[in-house]
Parts: sequence; C-alpha cells; structure tokens
Amino acid sequence: MHGIAVLGAGRIGRIHAANAMAHPLISLKYVVDPIDAAANELATTTGATVATLDQVFGDPTIGGVVVASSTDTHLEFSMRAVDAGKAVFCEKPLDLDLATARSAASSLGSGNARFFLGFNRRFDSNFRGLHQQIHSGEMGALETLHIVSHDPAPPPIDYVKVSGGMFKDMTIHDFDMARWLLGEDPVEVYSAATSVVDPAIGEAGDVDTAKIILRTGRGRICVISNSRRSGYGYDQRIEAFCSKGLLRAGNVLSSTVEAWGESGSSSGPLQNFFLDRYAGAYRAEMDHFAEVLGGISQPKIGYGDGIAALAIAEAAMESHRSSAVVEIRY
Amino acid sequence: MHGIAVLGAGRIGRIHAANAMAHPLISLKYVVDPIDAAANELATTTGATVATLDQVFGDPTIGGVVVASSTDTHLEFSMRAVDAGKAVFCEKPLDLDLATARSAASSLGSGNARFFLGFNRRFDSNFRGLHQQIHSGEMGALETLHIVSHDPAPPPIDYVKVSGGMFKDMTIHDFDMARWLLGEDPVEVYSAATSVVDPAIGEAGDVDTAKIILRTGRGRICVISNSRRSGYGYDQRIEAFCSKGLLRAGNVLSSTVEAWGESGSSSGPLQNFFLDRYAGAYRAEMDHFAEVLGGISQPKIGYGDGIAALAIAEAAMESHRSSAVVEIRY
Amino acid sequence: MHGIAVLGAGRIGRIHAANAMAHPLISLKYVVDPIDAAANELATTTGATVATLDQVFGDPTIGGVVVASSTDTHLEFSMRAVDAGKAVFCEKPLDLDLATARSAASSLGSGNARFFLGFNRRFDSNFRGLHQQIHSGEMGALETLHIVSHDPAPPPIDYVKVSGGMFKDMTIHDFDMARWLLGEDPVEVYSAATSVVDPAIGEAGDVDTAKIILRTGRGRICVISNSRRSGYGYDQRIEAFCSKGLLRAGNVLSSTVEAWGESGSSSGPLQNFFLDRYAGAYRAEMDHFAEVLGGISQPKIGYGDGIAALAIAEAAMESHRSSAVVEIRY
Amino acid sequence: MHGIAVLGAGRIGRIHAANAMAHPLISLKYVVDPIDAAANELATTTGATVATLDQVFGDPTIGGVVVASSTDTHLEFSMRAVDAGKAVFCEKPLDLDLATARSAASSLGSGNARFFLGFNRRFDSNFRGLHQQIHSGEMGALETLHIVSHDPAPPPIDYVKVSGGMFKDMTIHDFDMARWLLGEDPVEVYSAATSVVDPAIGEAGDVDTAKIILRTGRGRICVISNSRRSGYGYDQRIEAFCSKGLLRAGNVLSSTVEAWGESGSSSGPLQNFFLDRYAGAYRAEMDHFAEVLGGISQPKIGYGDGIAALAIAEAAMESHRSSAVVEIRY
Repeated sequence: MHGIAVLGAGRIGRIHAANAMAHPLISLKYVVDPIDAAANELATTTGATVATLDQVFGDPTIGGVVVASSTDTHLEFSMRAVDAGKAVFCEKPLDLDLATARSAASSLGSGNARFFLGFNRRFDSNFRGLHQQIHSGEMGALETLHIVSHDPAPPPIDYVKVSGGMFKDMTIHDFDMARWLLGEDPVEVYSAATSVVDPAIGEAGDVDTAKIILRTGRGRICVISNSRRSGYGYDQRIEAFCSKGLLRAGNVLSSTVEAWGESGSSSGPLQNFFLDRYAGAYRAEMDHFAEVLGGISQPKIGYGDGIAALAIAEAAMESHRSSAVVEIRY
Repeated sequence: MHGIAVLGAGRIGRIHAANAMAHPLISLKYVVDPIDAAANELATTTGATVATLDQVFGDPTIGGVVVASSTDTHLEFSMRAVDAGKAVFCEKPLDLDLATARSAASSLGSGNARFFLGFNRRFDSNFRGLHQQIHSGEMGALETLHIVSHDPAPPPIDYVKVSGGMFKDMTIHDFDMARWLLGEDPVEVYSAATSVVDPAIGEAGDVDTAKIILRTGRGRICVISNSRRSGYGYDQRIEAFCSKGLLRAGNVLSSTVEAWGESGSSSGPLQNFFLDRYAGAYRAEMDHFAEVLGGISQPKIGYGDGIAALAIAEAAMESHRSSAVVEIRY
Repeated sequence: MHGIAVLGAGRIGRIHAANAMAHPLISLKYVVDPIDAAANELATTTGATVATLDQVFGDPTIGGVVVASSTDTHLEFSMRAVDAGKAVFCEKPLDLDLATARSAASSLGSGNARFFLGFNRRFDSNFRGLHQQIHSGEMGALETLHIVSHDPAPPPIDYVKVSGGMFKDMTIHDFDMARWLLGEDPVEVYSAATSVVDPAIGEAGDVDTAKIILRTGRGRICVISNSRRSGYGYDQRIEAFCSKGLLRAGNVLSSTVEAWGESGSSSGPLQNFFLDRYAGAYRAEMDHFAEVLGGISQPKIGYGDGIAALAIAEAAMESHRSSAVVEIRY
Repeated sequence: MHGIAVLGAGRIGRIHAANAMAHPLISLKYVVDPIDAAANELATTTGATVATLDQVFGDPTIGGVVVASSTDTHLEFSMRAVDAGKAVFCEKPLDLDLATARSAASSLGSGNARFFLGFNRRFDSNFRGLHQQIHSGEMGALETLHIVSHDPAPPPIDYVKVSGGMFKDMTIHDFDMARWLLGEDPVEVYSAATSVVDPAIGEAGDVDTAKIILRTGRGRICVISNSRRSGYGYDQRIEAFCSKGLLRAGNVLSSTVEAWGESGSSSGPLQNFFLDRYAGAYRAEMDHFAEVLGGISQPKIGYGDGIAALAIAEAAMESHRSSAVVEIRY
C-alpha cells in the first residue's frame, strides 16, 4: 500500500480522495487544505487525517501527493514534493503564466522527478480507444483532426476572471489531446474567437467561443471547436481523418431510452459535465499514479506536456488578439 | 420495348403505371379500369390508351399485364392473361379465400405460366441486403427471426370489413418474408391477437394487434409483431439471430436532421407508409417484370408462394380463434 | 451506519460486498461462506470478519444480511434472518421449486418481514427510465411489450444441470420485468423453445433458445426472446408499444469509437455480460437496501414477486413440454 | 408544359434531361452538344431532338434552357439565353475567373433576367430541413457552423488541372451553404490547406485537403472541412451551433442493415457520391425551374450568389498562398 496525501479539498480534490480511498494499492493518509472546514469534512468521509504540508512532506510513509489545490500553488507544492522525494500527481494547469511555469524546469522537468500531470482526457476509455486505433495504422496515416469540446454552461464570471482565460483554462485540454493524438507538436496556430455566450465574459477581456486551427511541422491540420455553453450538455467528440478512412469517438448518452411518437424520436440528454463523463478517467488516473508510486511506470504525462499546452494556449491568445497566424514557441 | 397494360387505376395501379412509363425497356400501352374517370385520368398522365380487357388480351403487341385491380378479380384476370399467353405481374394477395386460390393451380401454377406475384418487400434493398447476408453464411446458421411490421394508422373500417382480416391483408407480407428469409416453410403457428386500436375493428370480427410464433420443420422459430397503428409511422424491421451473431434491417428515417437541446435529442419521423418506404421496391419489381417479359428470368415469386402465405394466414386465424397451436396445411 | 453481513463469497457475493463497503451508510461487518478460503479472501479485501451464521444472527449490531449463497439455501437463510429480526437482501431465485418456495409464505411473505428480493434489472437506470416513461402516460396506454434477453455464451453444462432450467434460471428475470412494466400479472403463457446452441444442453433436458408469449388479464401481450448464446455480447433490450407510440431501452456499448472505411462503419462490442451491464444496478440495489435498513422504504421487490416469477416459469416449462398454451397459477 | 433545351450532354446534363423528361410540367425538346455522338445518344433516350444553339434560342416554344455545358461556356450561353428571353438554369460555377464572371453583371444580374444558378445542396431535403429549423429560431440564434464536405476519392489529375482549383471547384458549394445558412456574407477567411491525397495534385499547384474559417460581419464563425478523398464515401454533414443547442444534418447510409458479431457491429457504406446523395436535390431543382418557367417564383439562387461564392473562393486561395487572414471583396 502506498501512503498518499491529497492537497486541496475542493471539488477535484474530493474526487481524487474518493478514488484513492477505493484503490486497493493506495492508502489515503492525509488531507491538506487552508480551509479547516473543508479539510475536516474530507478527512471524515475518507478516514484520513488533516495535516499540514510540513507533516506530509516530512512523513517517510508518504510516497506521493495529489496536488489539487488552487492553481497558483501547483508549481510550489509540486516542487516541494519533488524535493521531499515524493511522487506527484498534479492537476492541470501547471500555472497560468508560461514564463513562471518554465522556471520550474530544473525541478519538475528533471529526469529524476516523478511528476504526473493530470490531463484526464487521455485516460478516458473512448479517447484511449481512439488513440490506439489511430496508432494501430489500420486506417492509414492520420491527416487531420477535429476536436469538439463544448461545456454545458459557462462558469460564474468570478471564476472566469481568475481562470487565465478560456484558452488556458479550457482549450488547454484540447491542445493536449491534439498533441497526444497527432504524436507531434503544432508549429502554428490561428484562433477565431468571440464572446457571444455572456457579455460579462467579453467585458472581462475573455472569450467564450472559439474555432482554432493548428498546423504541425509535418503539415497536418487540427481544428478545435470550443464553447463555454452548448445548451445540450457536455459535448466531447473527436474525429480523426486518416488516409484510409475516419476514426471517431462520440459523446456518451445518459440513457438508452428512446421515445418514438408522431413527430419523430427523442432521446435523453448527454452526460452533463466532466464529473460524470470523466469519472472513469479519474479512476484510471489513480491507477496510473499507483503504477508511478510502485515504480512500475514512468508518468505518462509530464512537465514538458504541461509547458507545451501552455505555450500553444499563449500563442492562440496572441492569434486571437492579432487576428493573424502565430508561430508557437515551445 | 415490351408493351404492357395496367389493369386497375387505383393507388397501386398508378404506382406501377408510373414505374412502367419510366422504365427504359417497357412501354405502357393500355390502362383498364371499370371506373371511366379513373382510367381516363391515368391514361392522360401516362400517355397510355384506355382499353377493355378483350382489347388487351387480343393485342399481340402486349407482352404482359399488371393486375392491380380489386382483389376478387386477381385470379380471373391472371388466368385470362396466362391463357392469352401474356406474362402477369399480379398484386398480392391471390385471393381472400384459400380454397378458391387453390382452384387456379392448373393455370397459374403450371410450369408454362409466367406469373409473378408482387410481394414487394422482397424487393426492398434493405431486406434484400439482409437476405443476402443471411444466406452468405457469414453469421453462421439462421436460428430465429423477429419481424416487426406495424402500420402508422388503421385503414377505414369499410376497408377492414372487406380486407379478409388482418392476417390475410397485412400479416401475409410477413408470412412471405418469414418463408423467404428462413428458406423453408413453417409447420405450425400460434397467434395471440387482440383488438385495441379501434373497437369497430373488433366489432367487425377482426383483430388489429397480434404477436405470432411460427415454427419450421427444422425447429427454427419466427416471431411476427403486427399492429394496425403504431403512432410513429411505418415500422418495418427484421432481426435475424444466427449462430454467430445478429443481422438486422432497420427503419428508414425521413430526414437525417437532429436537434440537441436541454432535454436531449430529437429526430424527425419514420417514413410514413408503404408508398414512401417501398418506392424503390416497386421500381425493382418493375425491373424484375422486365426480365420476365424479356425471358431473362423466371418469376422470383410465383403462385406457390401466394398459396403458402394464404395457408399460413388461415392457420394463424384458426389459432387466434382456438387459442391453440395450429398445424399449417399447404 | 447499518452493520450487515454477506452470506456467500462467490461472484455475486463479492459484488455486493464491494458495494456495501463503498456505501456511506453501510458497514460490512461479516462474511460467511462454507469454503474457508473464499470467506477469508473476501474478508481480507473488504476489511470484514469471517463469521458463522450463528454469530451473524446473534449479533445485535447487525441490521441485515445479503443472501448470496447457493440457491438451495436462499429460503432457509432468509427465514432464519427474518426470525432474528434482520432485514434481508436475497438474490434471486427464491428457490428452484415453486412448492418449496410457497412453503415460506408465512415467514417471508408476512407483513413484518423486511425481505428484499434482488431482481437487479428493475434497478438498471435505463429500464427505470423506461418504466417511468411508460407509467407517466406520455405515450398513452401500454399495449404490448417485447423483451430481448440473450446471454453472450452458454454457461458450463455442469451449471446448466443444476440451474433449474433456462426458464427458472434466466427467463425468470424477464418474467419479472414483464410483470413490473405491465403492472399486472400474465394469465397464460405459450413457449416455443428449442436447443440449438449446445447439444449437451438438450441432452440434459433443458432448452437454450425460446420465444415466449404472455397474455395478461386485460388482454395485453408480451413477447420474450431468450438465447443462451448471442455471439455478440449481452443483448438486453425492451420495447414498449403504447397507444401513442413506442418507448424503448437499448443496449449499452462498451465504447463510442467508430471506424468508417471503404466497406462501411464498425463499432466496438456490447458490454459483455451482467457484471458490466448491471454494475450500476447492483449499486442501486445496495442504495435501496440501505433505505430498507433505515426504515425509509419498504422493500420494492418482495416474496410475492419471487413466487409470481417462479409460477410463470413453471407454466412456461409446461407449455414447452405440451406445445400448448398454459394457464398460469399463482 | 414548358418547352426546354438542355445544353451539354455530359454526366450532369443527362441527369437534368432525365428529370426534365419525368417532370409533369416540362417538355424536353432539344439537346445541344458539340460532340454529336453524345447529343444523339441523349436525344434518343429522352425522345428529344438534337439542335444547334441558334435553333434553341430562335424557337419561341422554348421557355428556358439548362446550361450544363463546359464551365467556360456558362456565361456566354446564359447571356445569349437571357438575351433571347429564355429562363436559365445554369450549373455552377458561373466561371472560373471572378473578374470574367463580374463582367456579366449587367446581363445576368439584371432584375429582368430569370437566371437560376444550380447550387444543388440548397435543394437537398436534409439541408433544407436544417435551414428551416435554424431559421425557425427554435434553437435560438445561430452562432457557429461546421461544414464537413469530403469526396470519396480524388478526380483524375487531368480534371484537377482544369478545375480552377479545389476552392472554386469543390469548396464553392460549401461557401454557398455557409452564406445560405448564416444568412449573411463572411467578411474574412483563413485557409489552412495542403496536398496529402495525391502528390500529382500538389505538383499541379492545387490542394486536396483544407480547413477553412470564415467570419461574418456580425462576428459569427464557420469552419469548413474539405478533402478530395475520404476513403469512406461521400461525407456531407453540417452542424449548426445555436444559442440554445445544436442542429445537425448527417450522412445518408446506403443500407439500414447491421451485422453484430463478436467484435462489434458493422454497417454498410455511405452513399458513394453526389449522383446518389443529391438525386432528390436535382429533382427538386427541376421543380424549382418549373416554377421559374411558370412565373410562380423568382429564382431562389441567382447571379449574385455565384459571384459571392467565387469571391470567397478567391480569397480562400489567397489566404492559402499567404498564410494570412484575408478580407473578402464582393
């Protein structure tokens, strides 16, 4: 059993804590959160103990930490954990600022660091199946990629204001998926973005709707469609156009029930949001962290992936501002 | 060009006349109908001439006739046509009475007669594809069969009263499909039937809803579901359960448009009824009749098929009346 | 927290034990199994203690038991638990013999017994949605019902021999679904059954393929299709034909990935079997048992439901043997 | 009956001739083609007469002409027909050169000209349904649009060389669809295009794969995906993202048959190409031309639509060449 601590008792911290508790090889020992009530509540439901960071990093029975605290603490907590010899499972993003994130290279990017960055979609069984079928070559070479990633409804404007902007907060997942599925880095980006969902988002200097084109060094093209509000649930689809045909991963419905009447058929909604759609992906992330803790696997997603996704996000933002194609600098 | 006449200027006669007119190898010369107005109208729109039966049968340039007149004339007109050396494309059913239909055996069932009975569903491209895949053996041996055949809405009660009853009027198509797909004759039948759609149908001594089980000599089982009223259009589906898996042919939608909103998705209705769903099948029937006229093919469906379907229908009715399993006598 | 014991450490006992362990209101205290190794293993992975029946029934901190032991012990263990004042969550079937099962009426069927019989399909979210939509009346009155229930592959012949026969072992679920969705009891049954999957099943006196027609007192009709081997995974579908249209619950796919190539599209398989397809249903059963333990709800499925399903199964067997329609005696 | 002539006896001319022949209000009188054999063959199968242009334009019984001749004759023949007082149904594109096409403004763009430009997709029943649902407002305001338009396989390189390039030959349909569905003109375009399907296409200076982003004056965004080769048939889909949800029109399958086996399900291919997919659209175009001939309707698509689509195509080409966003000049 690998002893771990969860840093951060918010929504995503509670998910990881529950998965850790249910994992046969992981023992959740500590919960850390600056808000006592939150820490206490999570500790109670999981049987863990509330602790300080010093206690966590100083306890030799702790093999790793899950960094699910606020974004501005991701780098600091991760570096302290690496210094203490702990494996790290860090929520995305690394940081909202690319330059700041780059400054952690000698620590988190070193060959010795066991630093796993949680881009959860890579662990979704549908997207894993898609990745596998693309790379099996059964459909020939991947030529172009379409990623649709629309949230059901926009977050509160207070969240938007501290989110780093849609490209870093939301599209960053799609940039990572593009890199993972294409198997190479995009070299340039063009973003056509706007704010139509909520005027307050535009007033805050952010966008809520975007169509983005990425080109790779080998000339392959990826289109990403983003919206903060779909109106019909959580739309998460990918189409991979290959030289011999099409591979695609679709949405997951909340029910198989159909009603057929005079005016046609109707079906229930899509799964509403990421906690449902990616519940299995979060469990699979914890499985992978157990492998990292056990020395069975290197982290499948690391510091370099976090930097790359941030670099694309900054270039996408620059493209939006300049209405021009922008070269991506990694 | 094969000169033909269409006997009967009603709904189905007009379909066949239009298909004949559009066929590159067929020339529609005559239209015959006891109602002058109907005959004249069809003749005008098709460029054909109104004629009498004697004129049709006596004209040596006429190679064949389409018998689309009222059911009680099917046998008589077909036999006269065969006597006159014409090929016949006769609408189903042969007759509403099995004994009467049997009496035509020496004429319509003779080896010389070119008598094509129009069970249109065998010419539907989806069901032809299903038939071909079943018989290709790719899924192993066919074991059981489910046929769903529900009309959108019941016919007028006046039609019901002269229809011969649901089994002979509607299920007869499904009995033919069962024989065709199974490749052998059912030997016994059990019908659970009722009247729930319209009390007038029950009062007229007929049923409007039935679930029927057929068993073949080799022990294979077929379920037929019938309803005079689906409420959601023309439901025409078949599932063939084979030793290695399932083959199925589904419904045809009237549109591919989907709407996704807060409460889920909705799509447009099924094609509403047989004139839409089987438009291609009627054209394919005319293609086949051209082959028969040209001596390229023997009729793919003949007198014996009509007798067999009627025999099953009578047994199904007897089963319904007796609430017992009934042996089918061909 | 409600303390419970799981009786039986086999496949289904382990499912219930894991769900009990993860349930926030239930504490799994004891595991009982005549095979020590099995009991020990399950106790270890769940943190429970191995115990005897006497310990379980004599411990006042135990509020209920899950009876997941061999079928021939279901009645005895359930009655002992009821006598000891425990709530019971009993796996189906009550017993393989209807007369024996009836003999427990005064105990398990009494108004005081908290006896929950685990027909898991009633707790599947898709079938629950179907049930709700049927009973909402949005589609008018339910008229006929089609239940398809095909297993992926037959069980070992040794299991078949002690299973009580397909009707009691497998179709019993469908009989329960029919009663639940129809909201009334069938009064007669006709079964057309055969053995085509495995000759050994026929030699053992059992069938592996059946089409069954049930009729209710109000004249409604239900068709059940059963096979011990589909060849394409676990086929679990229901169609409810109503006066205004069709409601249906379909299969659950294991993946949303599709491949489109020259010859068309292909998708991955259905979920393979009940442990996957009904994983959520088993969790929902445990939720319900927690409600029963807490006195919040009466058991939604009880002794009478078990008797009814067995009575239909015996009548279906008699119909198969006699090739006749059989009246069901409850 | 409206007497018409078809100019051009190639593939698309034969389609229009057959639809004219079958139309109840249109009489196909003349066929014109510089290749005598082609003209004679089409005249024979349709019952029309081979004629010269002078005969067609000088015959007062001719109400209109279908211009289905080679692209470089579209403007000249159309202008001559308008001068002769005939209605014109002209195949797209107007011309391969925008400046040349603009030079016909005083003739084809005048208020008196009855000039119908055949952008066939506007007449596809699925896309018409989509258009209607978008404009009904049921889904709120249209915000962004995705058009996928992939051909099954590339044309011969000799065709590519004279086609005017993919943007004018193929994407021009999508530009027209974008304008029609958005209800306003795009003001800028960015094209990311490449040649991966066939090196010969790249060597000829053309592209075979493109992702294009259009922005309208009101800030709405449209993505177009093009490929000269899908590998899986004719992929023609549109998704309209609206403020309350998604409307989409999907592909049409060639068959409803599905096969379910051990490894999952497979279905038949998409309709292979435009002659199948848009057969109904071509018939609907002829219906509309009959309305124009009868003075019942103004042409729904006119000269201005042809100029606009060409203007977007030229801007898209310029964007591809410059790798920059390009303003569209109408």
